[in-house]
Amino acid sequence: MARSAIGRLFAGLRCLPVGNTQLQIQCSRWSSERTGVEASMFSHKPRDFSLPNPSWGEEMMRLYKHYNLQSEEAAGQGEDGERWTRLPSYNRSLKYATGGVYLSKMIQSKARLFTRNIRDPGAAFEYVLFFRNDKQRCLCIFQAGHLLEGPPGHVHGGAIATMIDTVTGTHASLLSAPVMTANLNINYRSPIPLGSTVLIESTLDKEEGKKKFISCKVSSTDGSKLHTEATALFVSISVSHLLRG
Amino acid sequence: MARSAIGRLFAGLRCLPVGNTQLQIQCSRWSSERTGVEASMFSHKPRDFSLPNPSWGEEMMRLYKHYNLQSEEAAGQGEDGERWTRLPSYNRSLKYATGGVYLSKMIQSKARLFTRNIRDPGAAFEYVLFFRNDKQRCLCIFQAGHLLEGPPGHVHGGAIATMIDTVTGTHASLLSAPVMTANLNINYRSPIPLGSTVLIESTLDKEEGKKKFISCKVSSTDGSKLHTEATALFVSISVSHLLRG
Repeated sequence: MARSAIGRLFAGLRCLPVGNTQLQIQCSRWSSERTGVEASMFSHKPRDFSLPNPSWGEEMMRLYKHYNLQSEEAAGQGEDGERWTRLPSYNRSLKYATGGVYLSKMIQSKARLFTRNIRDPGAAFEYVLFFRNDKQRCLCIFQAGHLLEGPPGHVHGGAIATMIDTVTGTHASLLSAPVMTANLNINYRSPIPLGSTVLIESTLDKEEGKKKFISCKVSSTDGSKLHTEATALFVSISVSHLLRG
Repeated sequence: MARSAIGRLFAGLRCLPVGNTQLQIQCSRWSSERTGVEASMFSHKPRDFSLPNPSWGEEMMRLYKHYNLQSEEAAGQGEDGERWTRLPSYNRSLKYATGGVYLSKMIQSKARLFTRNIRDPGAAFEYVLFFRNDKQRCLCIFQAGHLLEGPPGHVHGGAIATMIDTVTGTHASLLSAPVMTANLNINYRSPIPLGSTVLIESTLDKEEGKKKFISCKVSSTDGSKLHTEATALFVSISVSHLLRG
């Protein structure tokens, strides 16, 4: 894809309302969780992967209902730091938005978001993200499918890293999009069995200029077992940074 | 899967010759690159994902031929630290090995290695690993497919982390299988365009008892651009460690 084409595409993007917060579609650190494209922007209705499907197990559904109820209650009630808001999730950030010739080129692309590249429900990454309205914390309910195997019967370390990057990157982009991952430092404490549901929680540690320092932990849903701990550093960038490659 | 079943399965696994080195099938840090299952062990011939397919681009093929020629020359010539040996790669470590009732249970499983879970050639992770016979270095040629997208047109940070875990983990397992990833510390320097081919090189820094410290870098094939740098720590474990979850 020509760099100039990307540049002109992004130049036309703008802020859009989602729930009771403002998310910027422009780049939003690129992940579809963060684009929050309005229904009116869609050329046709995309699949929102953050909504339940028949593959979701009992624990995934229980937690989803718990946080989604708060999300629905929070809608339209303004900023309340204690409330959680669900983020929609698509397998392409920009496919469904209207646009000109450059967007058309992206639509033609076969590229798909890594975490949403398998449509078979339950086979790979099943997850839904919520953020607290004061943007101090994000929370992800993650059910690991059978195509994520590393050690026999357990989730691949790279798949765990992928979810940590996704959650912390989403968090950072809520604070100031666009951002890029600068560092991930991951300590693996205990393997995650395939098929299990875990909680991934991120917390904003500090902001220093363009830098966002975020910590993250992956734990069992009852909190009794810590699977993974991580810190992440994100840096706000201009679109030209990415275009320079 | 019952823990006792896994335990009894592993108890029956043994060392197998691959090329001019000895690799242990037992656990081998779980990734199929490291199982090195002999043809005679297969119930039917599996697909070796480390061999070229039509999706491989010109640069991927050029590098593959360069290192594979050395691998073929090295075969059967004993230990020579300067030579490279190709590692075969399957989408399941144990599916094709013969075994009893417990292996049968694993064969029935739908689980697939995360990095080989998409069979469409060129769509996701295309890669081949080589190791130097003195086990001081590993090298991976990696072509990133369109289903690995993070930033528009570029590879997801989690997909890069996945390949780093795969290469360094393979390297650690050659030194002493089984191992588990204890830490990954990844610095992202420059994004990787989708469709491009990069080199991933790992170097053994030191061994301290059960710990293997390995560094890794991801760079353009001409060496002019450093995309990612990382350090990794692996710990040798007993099978019971995994079974404890």
